[in-house]
Amino acid sequence: MIVDVYIELKEGVADPEGEATKKALRLLGFRNVKSVSSRKVFRIEIDVKTREEAEKEIEMMCEKLLVNPVIQKYKIQWVE
Amino acid sequence: MIVDVYIELKEGVADPEGEATKKALRLLGFRNVKSVSSRKVFRIEIDVKTREEAEKEIEMMCEKLLVNPVIQKYKIQWVE
Repeated sequence: MIVDVYIELKEGVADPEGEATKKALRLLGFRNVKSVSSRKVFRIEIDVKTREEAEKEIEMMCEKLLVNPVIQKYKIQWVE
Repeated sequence: MIVDVYIELKEGVADPEGEATKKALRLLGFRNVKSVSSRKVFRIEIDVKTREEAEKEIEMMCEKLLVNPVIQKYKIQWVE
């Protein structure tokens, strides 16, 4: 099974990468850009039999390694 | 309009972040993980009237700043 884990910053957390990207785009002349925010995606291929098992494992991976719950939140999207 | 720009590595390009994440997950005991690849998403809010304009501008942003065409490819997804 293949899963995309989307990781983004929680509301109110500063996003320096997004801010810097917005500034750079505006300096390049893209004046219509209102905001830019950055996100991270991990595409994970996992060898389990059911979606329930995959979901449970992915949640544990997020808690143990992939996501910092103080500043980030995540969602899971099925690819296959 | 709000657009997500998904940036990923082209086929055959090494993905050290994905590889390191896979190794770390396996060391933590997630033996069912077969592969991990990393992607980047920029969520861009742009103030134009039509989707065509937005698409054209986003493509220029990718070419000029966001994407390194030697090793990366991108796709656009509409959020709003």
